[in-house]
Amino acid sequence: MSLLRLLLGEKKKSASVAKERLQLIIARERSGNEGPAPDYLPALQAELIAVISKYAKVSSDDIKLNLEKQGNFEVLEVKIEIPQG
Amino acid sequence: MSLLRLLLGEKKKSASVAKERLQLIIARERSGNEGPAPDYLPALQAELIAVISKYAKVSSDDIKLNLEKQGNFEVLEVKIEIPQG
Repeated sequence: MSLLRLLLGEKKKSASVAKERLQLIIARERSGNEGPAPDYLPALQAELIAVISKYAKVSSDDIKLNLEKQGNFEVLEVKIEIPQG
Repeated sequence: MSLLRLLLGEKKKSASVAKERLQLIIARERSGNEGPAPDYLPALQAELIAVISKYAKVSSDDIKLNLEKQGNFEVLEVKIEIPQG
């Protein structure tokens, strides 16, 4: 299933589309054969949101974060609703 | 299907896991009732890669880009292979 169809499918459920939405997903797969690599995802996430705020008016109330970890794999999801006008 | 399972599924197919991999997905859904909004995804993508380069040694040869557009929806996918050591 393409990412677009997965993300688009999610979108259809949302009632009205009065806002612009931005979804940022960072998936990291460690190779597993090196020692404990630095966990830079939290710092990376903060900087990425700062970059996005340059392009769209974003307030912290409009940001939802979700972090999933499984083995060498971690996925950080950032959902941002951008008020219009 | 959760994003982790979708992305993890993709990962299993890759032969050996000798490198660290980072996947960045930016999905933007415009509300559609405002005029042509500025297309800031290309500029945003360049800045996000610059931020990632602060955390991991990344060369342009290791970066694969994919942009999908459908109606008010666009998904930008950035796949980065990070050489170890």
